[in-house]
Amino acid sequence: MKIAILPGDGIGPEIVAQAVKVLNVLGESFELETAPVGGAGYAAHGHPLPEGTLALAKAADAVLFGAVGDYQYDNLERQFRPEQAILGLRKNLGLFANLRPAILYPELAGASTLKPEVVSGLDILIIRELTGDIYFGQPRGVRECPDGPFKGQREGFDTMRYAEGEIRRIAHVAFQAAQKRDKRLTSVDKANVLETFQFWKDIVIDVHKEYPDVALDHMYVDNAAMQLVRAPKKFDVMVTGNMFGDILSDAAAMLTGSIGMLPSASLDANNKGLYEPSHGSAPDIAGKGIANPLATILSAAMMLRYSLNREEQANRIEAAVKHVLAQGLRTADIHEAGTTLVGTEAMGDAVVKAL
Amino acid sequence: MKIAILPGDGIGPEIVAQAVKVLNVLGESFELETAPVGGAGYAAHGHPLPEGTLALAKAADAVLFGAVGDYQYDNLERQFRPEQAILGLRKNLGLFANLRPAILYPELAGASTLKPEVVSGLDILIIRELTGDIYFGQPRGVRECPDGPFKGQREGFDTMRYAEGEIRRIAHVAFQAAQKRDKRLTSVDKANVLETFQFWKDIVIDVHKEYPDVALDHMYVDNAAMQLVRAPKKFDVMVTGNMFGDILSDAAAMLTGSIGMLPSASLDANNKGLYEPSHGSAPDIAGKGIANPLATILSAAMMLRYSLNREEQANRIEAAVKHVLAQGLRTADIHEAGTTLVGTEAMGDAVVKAL
Ligand SMILES: CC(C)[C@H](C(=O)O)[C@@H](O)C(=O)O
Ligand SMILES: CC(C)[C@H](C(=O)O)[C@@H](O)C(=O)O
Repeated sequence: MKIAILPGDGIGPEIVAQAVKVLNVLGESFELETAPVGGAGYAAHGHPLPEGTLALAKAADAVLFGAVGDYQYDNLERQFRPEQAILGLRKNLGLFANLRPAILYPELAGASTLKPEVVSGLDILIIRELTGDIYFGQPRGVRECPDGPFKGQREGFDTMRYAEGEIRRIAHVAFQAAQKRDKRLTSVDKANVLETFQFWKDIVIDVHKEYPDVALDHMYVDNAAMQLVRAPKKFDVMVTGNMFGDILSDAAAMLTGSIGMLPSASLDANNKGLYEPSHGSAPDIAGKGIANPLATILSAAMMLRYSLNREEQANRIEAAVKHVLAQGLRTADIHEAGTTLVGTEAMGDAVVKAL
Repeated sequence: MKIAILPGDGIGPEIVAQAVKVLNVLGESFELETAPVGGAGYAAHGHPLPEGTLALAKAADAVLFGAVGDYQYDNLERQFRPEQAILGLRKNLGLFANLRPAILYPELAGASTLKPEVVSGLDILIIRELTGDIYFGQPRGVRECPDGPFKGQREGFDTMRYAEGEIRRIAHVAFQAAQKRDKRLTSVDKANVLETFQFWKDIVIDVHKEYPDVALDHMYVDNAAMQLVRAPKKFDVMVTGNMFGDILSDAAAMLTGSIGMLPSASLDANNKGLYEPSHGSAPDIAGKGIANPLATILSAAMMLRYSLNREEQANRIEAAVKHVLAQGLRTADIHEAGTTLVGTEAMGDAVVKAL
């Protein structure tokens, strides 16, 4: 089994190093190979997703990704900016299914900005389609406005679109995920306004016929954003498109107050995947040794479960993370009075020890 | 001065009746004329926005709108569904600027699902562009997928677009609103992915040159959704497109926990406007006399301020609402131990008395 390690920028290298440490003590013979991505890719090879990095990611059985982005790359032309590496990897590897759990560990309930009774025990799974929608739809660009009151002026435009097969495959992923959980799926759309999402809704209803054991409901995206704030624990699994999923999964992650704890998986049709923490590259704290490595370590656990077929090792890592939390160890982002403040390395070491 | 009164469906008629009572005691000689809209429009004339209703709204100096939507209209074809009335009014009246304050009254801090220290004193203004974007962009529909791996299948599609002049005019509204407040404006975009919103950002930066006294910053929509949950009080004014604004303004409203308190204004280029509560038609509680009329009463206050040039009357109404809250009167949606539960009528009467 070959794992591509793409640490990226900012805190990426520090946190990925801890996950690698964890992988190395499992007693498995994984082959790990590292390559630069994002700003680091641009610095090394003039492109955020260098050819060699893409080739490695394609050849590997799974990709462990840190985070990308740093101040010095902010003013590059868009095609060279670090986040293009993420979009390029998703599209080139066909990673259409993004799984974003939003889980609130009981020990960390205080970290949330929401009242404990609203969020404690939160455990929802947001499934975001990741290779379609307005992220990639053509045509797009800036052109002369063809009609209406602004005719002749410049206008920016993009195309939102979802083909039937694209919706079917993400719906299957979502129904199957719900079957393994509380068997409730909320499909989030904007069918009252968008043709794309009326079509989305129709197809999801059709796929539902194959999963009669799952309770399906439909919610408009604006209402979903409200219900996530009002009563997030009512959700089990949510499925939505790329753009709405971008917004809702980040909002859901922030409900926990501990985004430094949240992993994510982006899977292709054969369960090959890219695994990364839900948080960003946090260049402001990079190199200080204070970043929380747990989201990346938990991403490695998801990798073991979904792509490497090592459910038991995944469970071991997740148990080890729970153990260090129960011990009271906390990085700065989740530190509270009465707990023990530790740095990135020490947190990684504690997980290794718990294993 | 002529005001079109469009009560709509569900709780719409009950809450609008209270706002009308309030308008009637101001001692102004407004001419009020009522017409059916939404499901009520469909029931009376076979269309959610009957011709006569649209004509009235066009002829009036301002429109007071309740809410639309009820169970029996859920399965109509989209063009006949109640919400088409809202979209039709916005487009036909050119109501491009939607102002959605999210204010947390100190007395109601307990109603929020967020911790009091995170939201008490919250006072942000979200300005949503309301007649452009993917809501109205052409072409849209269901077609045969023209290329890519799903070629030949059916696909749903929509067009996102913003012309330069459309962005300029909403930016001016936003900068001017910020000038009257804390002089800070956050423009929310997704410039890292969408051409439309890179263009949006460029134009907003250009308009900023005319408002050097306002501090402008830019935030991606996913991050904005997170920051609304994490630290909403950091915002002053936010401006964004129609689709992102739909999601973020509802999320912001829900942060207060008292969406029954939040008014909204939708303005054209000459400050003619449509005023409506931020909440929906709540058919589950319609006719029970328990709905909160304050958002509608406060919408009437916004109408007096923005469209009818009666700032003083607007202030009087807002003071009266604060007064009834201070008296401890609460409708069911905001009721807590130690306060007095009242119904829709009694709340309207209390505001009238306080005036
Ligand atoms: C960096 C950006 C292109 C990306 C996205 O919008 O998908 C990010 O926000 C994410 O959610 O992974
Ligand atoms: C009913 C619907 C078309 C509408 C919208 O999406 O604009 C509503 O959600 C709103 O925000 O007023």
